Amino acid sequence: MTEKPAIIVDLNFHPEQVREGLRHAFSGRGVINRLDPANDGADLSKAAYALLWKPKADLFQRATGLKVLFSGGAGVDHVLTLPGLPDLPLVRFVDPTLTTRMSEWVVMQCLMHLRQQVAYDRNRRKKIWNPLVQPEASEITVGIMGMGVLGSDSARKLKAIGFNVIGWSKSGKPVDGVEMHGAESLDAFLAKTDMLVGLLPLTPETRGIFNGDLFSRLRRSGPLGGPVFINAGRGGSQVETDIIAALNSGRLKGASLDVFETEPLPATSPLWEMDTVMMTPHTAADSDVSALFAHVERQIERYESGQPLQHLVERGAGY
Amino acid sequence: MTEKPAIIVDLNFHPEQVREGLRHAFSGRGVINRLDPANDGADLSKAAYALLWKPKADLFQRATGLKVLFSGGAGVDHVLTLPGLPDLPLVRFVDPTLTTRMSEWVVMQCLMHLRQQVAYDRNRRKKIWNPLVQPEASEITVGIMGMGVLGSDSARKLKAIGFNVIGWSKSGKPVDGVEMHGAESLDAFLAKTDMLVGLLPLTPETRGIFNGDLFSRLRRSGPLGGPVFINAGRGGSQVETDIIAALNSGRLKGASLDVFETEPLPATSPLWEMDTVMMTPHTAADSDVSALFAHVERQIERYESGQPLQHLVERGAGY
Repeated sequence: MTEKPAIIVDLNFHPEQVREGLRHAFSGRGVINRLDPANDGADLSKAAYALLWKPKADLFQRATGLKVLFSGGAGVDHVLTLPGLPDLPLVRFVDPTLTTRMSEWVVMQCLMHLRQQVAYDRNRRKKIWNPLVQPEASEITVGIMGMGVLGSDSARKLKAIGFNVIGWSKSGKPVDGVEMHGAESLDAFLAKTDMLVGLLPLTPETRGIFNGDLFSRLRRSGPLGGPVFINAGRGGSQVETDIIAALNSGRLKGASLDVFETEPLPATSPLWEMDTVMMTPHTAADSDVSALFAHVERQIERYESGQPLQHLVERGAGY
Repeated sequence: MTEKPAIIVDLNFHPEQVREGLRHAFSGRGVINRLDPANDGADLSKAAYALLWKPKADLFQRATGLKVLFSGGAGVDHVLTLPGLPDLPLVRFVDPTLTTRMSEWVVMQCLMHLRQQVAYDRNRRKKIWNPLVQPEASEITVGIMGMGVLGSDSARKLKAIGFNVIGWSKSGKPVDGVEMHGAESLDAFLAKTDMLVGLLPLTPETRGIFNGDLFSRLRRSGPLGGPVFINAGRGGSQVETDIIAALNSGRLKGASLDVFETEPLPATSPLWEMDTVMMTPHTAADSDVSALFAHVERQIERYESGQPLQHLVERGAGY
């Protein structure tokens, strides 16, 4: 038996990935992987740490000795709204892997809209060879709402490809090389934006922020023939009935969605069949479990050696 | 009447784009736009310049006073193989617009293969919500064959996104920040390459270079489960029957093709219906006509003021 306090791993991820990742993680420490049915009756009361993402409902009733909670993702709204959440330090997952994966997705979606991937694909299925008039990245302004670690990295990479990039955050605080807007200049920001990228955390203030009213304030005179909405933040920040209406009326030219109000997206959603929409199943910035486990190990090491924890969530702000 | 020597514009492009672009180009100089039926009987013998891309067959018989030829694209194989091509200076189109457009396309194709766009799209059409195991750009090596202006710019941008990038050129001459290979180390280059990007000019040496034998030397142990072939150079450099066979046997995992042995791609080609293939109709780096006309104007200015022409094609090398 190990003497180091145990960790509960309660991650609603691919079971094989978690199992494989755990083979090389938390050595010298007890690990209770709740994806393993053999642990269904395990004593959780001695564990000091819980690493969680959409955990099983009985976690906090049974894990009564917890000292620190770790979120399995960058967002923590799913954790903060858990029933029975104890008042313990909560560490978010900040990781270059997650950031670079998010930027891959954002750059790819912007490029697919720029390069008219949907139209070319439609033509191709009909065996139609038809070159389309093609604007260049430098003619397009991408406006990013949410300019934290993820937004800033996406901005840098979009600029490397040639896009104009502007940013919006609540504070409007400066970001190197990006024209920034804050709460009071949202209108000016939207009026310049051809492709709107959502990378906002979900808070009471951002719930439903991406709605018909906001879409109507985006630039319509750009070379794409209409604005595009791209969301990889949180589904709760978007109003899907408004997205669908805006796409149907032409107020939006296209959309890329990785997140949805309800996940998995219900089969009844019209979004599945709309060819103006590109979608992925909340995989824009999948956590790499090895990187996640390494991050948690580093923080536990700090905690057990008396150093302050990093990346602590500020509960009041909601992120 | 103008006194400056006239230019013949014989571009097999979108007629509206050429007409629109010409409204603002070559002022003070006669322009004979051969896409305009009114010019069918025009006297071509006085024109000093011809700007051409897949010109009408009678161009060189009728335009007997030409001094300089301008290619409407970066590649010149289509010009060099024209029957009756006079022995005149030939200027290629080198243009930042063309370069950045090519890089947009290359980065987008690499990202779509990395992020399993085809698989997600297939699932989506069946309303299947299924996150897939996802390698990161840094786990993938993109090998670019053809490291001129286009290849070097693509390399720089792929690196910014996070891919490992290596390069191959006949000479193997150094390119900043990229591990370069030359003729003698093609095998070593291929053995490290997960995504092979073709940006080669078409010459007798590159004709058919992308064939089954070459595909069999690509790395198979990468995280994508097999190598990918991406070609935006020239269709003549690829052997399409070999691409199809390699995709069917699994020797290639996927392909992105912008160029084809015969263009437009015949409706009988199996490539149209293969869902392992992404394709565009030779639009990866469409010439922007305004940029093209500005480039030709600059070169004519140099020529008429006695300065040497730039971007001259070396006929012996074929590019």
